[in-house]
Amino acid sequence: MTPNRVWGAERARGHVFIACSLDGYIATQGGEIDWLNTYAASGEEYGYEEFIASVDGIVMGRRTYEKALSFPAWPYELPVVVTSRSMKSNDLPIELTDSVEVSDADPADLVSALTERGLHSLYIDGGQVIQSFMRAGLIDEMIVSRVPLLLGAGIPLFGSDGPRLEMEHVATKSFPSGLVQSRYRATTR
Amino acid sequence: MTPNRVWGAERARGHVFIACSLDGYIATQGGEIDWLNTYAASGEEYGYEEFIASVDGIVMGRRTYEKALSFPAWPYELPVVVTSRSMKSNDLPIELTDSVEVSDADPADLVSALTERGLHSLYIDGGQVIQSFMRAGLIDEMIVSRVPLLLGAGIPLFGSDGPRLEMEHVATKSFPSGLVQSRYRATTR
Repeated sequence: MTPNRVWGAERARGHVFIACSLDGYIATQGGEIDWLNTYAASGEEYGYEEFIASVDGIVMGRRTYEKALSFPAWPYELPVVVTSRSMKSNDLPIELTDSVEVSDADPADLVSALTERGLHSLYIDGGQVIQSFMRAGLIDEMIVSRVPLLLGAGIPLFGSDGPRLEMEHVATKSFPSGLVQSRYRATTR
Repeated sequence: MTPNRVWGAERARGHVFIACSLDGYIATQGGEIDWLNTYAASGEEYGYEEFIASVDGIVMGRRTYEKALSFPAWPYELPVVVTSRSMKSNDLPIELTDSVEVSDADPADLVSALTERGLHSLYIDGGQVIQSFMRAGLIDEMIVSRVPLLLGAGIPLFGSDGPRLEMEHVATKSFPSGLVQSRYRATTR
């Protein structure tokens, strides 16, 4: 298990804030998330602003990065690390080179490095990245919002070769739209 | 889409009442559900008695049947149909031949037949059976209880080739144990 302290400092915590379908997909097979639009546009407060204000860095996979890149404007102000073995820093658009970097480090090494840089709280985003951080014991909290739609197929939030892991349920809230948001914490390891 | 009326009678409704892990598994790969024991023993009221009193027949897959058969006593008083292509009525233990039958009919034909027999409300149980009824548009209500445990792998509640289907969220309730129970209804088709 990954130690919780890195060079004497508490290792940066891993936080997940993600929406998925009732059947556990975070996007269609083609990466589409337009089925989430009605929720984004609902005016309901899912706590994203509060969440994003609570973290000081973001780690995401390549697909999540490419999705963010397709938005009209880059949606993050925080430093971002894109985990990828194939992508290089050269692949970043010039306007992002100050705030985005690419890393092929494994989760434990990446968290150690970010902890040494003084980061405390990381937003871990993207199915595969979440799964690999989960396997490494580096996810401390998950806020999962389930929307009342079965996608039938897609990119799963949880894979089929994850760790067996007890979580602690902190709270669940449901919204008039039918979105159900649950917060879980890793149990003490 | 399967018609909602059969020979002038309202077709029997399909109801799901199931527990799954946070990552959507209803059993381990080997079919184990011992990780649910703490919830069964918690004294918390998940509404199973009320649910089972609301249905008048049960349709389950072979694995669910075999699991039930492994219990100290057969747990159902209602008529049960086991859907299987390989199993025969001869395979049933003699003491179950009055209350259990085996069918290889497809979901629509099976529901038509049960409707003609006067059944109104069916408990649909088992991952594959739920998925095939879902694909056939024969699930009208789902009560899903998620326990705060990631299994990592196992028998999925929802497969990866299901239909895309909007559901209506009716209510969600969470329990001190961390189990979160949500009730969904099929939207009008």
